Amino acid sequence: MAGEGDVNHPYIPRDLKLPGFVPGFLSQSTIVGYYGIASLLVVSFMWILSGFFRKITKVDRILMCWWIFTGLTHMILEGYFVFSPEFYKEKTPHYLAEVWKEYSKGDSRYVGRDSAVISVEGITAVLEGPACLLAVYAIATKKSYSYILQTAISLGQLYGTAVYFITALLDGDNFAVNEFYYYSYYVFANGWWVLIPSIIVVRCWKKICAACHGQELKKTKTG
Amino acid sequence: MAGEGDVNHPYIPRDLKLPGFVPGFLSQSTIVGYYGIASLLVVSFMWILSGFFRKITKVDRILMCWWIFTGLTHMILEGYFVFSPEFYKEKTPHYLAEVWKEYSKGDSRYVGRDSAVISVEGITAVLEGPACLLAVYAIATKKSYSYILQTAISLGQLYGTAVYFITALLDGDNFAVNEFYYYSYYVFANGWWVLIPSIIVVRCWKKICAACHGQELKKTKTG
Repeated sequence: MAGEGDVNHPYIPRDLKLPGFVPGFLSQSTIVGYYGIASLLVVSFMWILSGFFRKITKVDRILMCWWIFTGLTHMILEGYFVFSPEFYKEKTPHYLAEVWKEYSKGDSRYVGRDSAVISVEGITAVLEGPACLLAVYAIATKKSYSYILQTAISLGQLYGTAVYFITALLDGDNFAVNEFYYYSYYVFANGWWVLIPSIIVVRCWKKICAACHGQELKKTKTG
Repeated sequence: MAGEGDVNHPYIPRDLKLPGFVPGFLSQSTIVGYYGIASLLVVSFMWILSGFFRKITKVDRILMCWWIFTGLTHMILEGYFVFSPEFYKEKTPHYLAEVWKEYSKGDSRYVGRDSAVISVEGITAVLEGPACLLAVYAIATKKSYSYILQTAISLGQLYGTAVYFITALLDGDNFAVNEFYYYSYYVFANGWWVLIPSIIVVRCWKKICAACHGQELKKTKTG
């Protein structure tokens, strides 16, 4: 195990080796603030835009806001992480590098390039991100694949979060700087990607069952 | 790195530490043979049983055979692996321990208790295994949730296989004793859980879209 003197980063475990690490430049409030404001803008834009579509319910408009928010988060934030293995060496205040330098205080497996984390984030950024944008389009234009697409992405988000939490537990659950970062970044922030996909899966599952039941009845009548 | 003299197991990488390892007792042909015969019995039993259900198509009968086979594989073989961290120390010829001692020649992350492998196998054995048996019941009794359940499990199998392959690649793809085990166990055996779930997802996706389209038309007519 390395002595305290050899360690050039704030992360846990302390013996994590990060040669060339450059500390973050932006404060936590700046990083979280920018993400919050950008997300609010995207969601407001989608809420207003969705209002122009005819015969659209309030629930569908809220879902469109969720899918654009989560889709852009997957593609931009998580996409940057997956394809920037050396983000922690970034010498200038690059916003996306700052996000992951900060988030790694809640889970150092990000800065440590854990293979399970990269796998899950890779699938999320490359497959689920674009699929989320397709879901916005599918809801707006009432495509017949809307419910099954939303179910598929939400199940993917749930599976990914499950692998993310279970691997951490199996590897000792000791990747956060302190309890504050553990609960706010690791538990609370990820919690939304458990809660919301679960609600969407339940809703879409019921809609699909109702549609399949209707189809079956029609067949029985005509058959 | 350990010298050859310290290593008591046949697996790659050679510096993998397995204190207390006991070599397998059964031959490859015995292990594969038992799995083949048991699977054939289960599938034959399901094929005959499914014939007694009224108005059931041949495709549905084949699907029932697949779901009982994959469900029992998940619950028994993979379930044993997940909950038996010390299977490689098994001193008597326990069939399930032999399976994983043998399979680890194609992927030593099993005997090495890699956390990504355990996470994926845990989700597969505990959630997907029982869900497969529910799928058999759902197809036989023409439940309205049959297609969405089959889609959900198949997507889970695909997600799990993706994490399984991507983590191996990221970790150096050097876990097989030789090319024979790499291609026969790691690539070929797992390939079935990419091919068949993909076919099922495409089929169910189309069925669900057709049903949702029908539902939408009905609404437009009556609304």
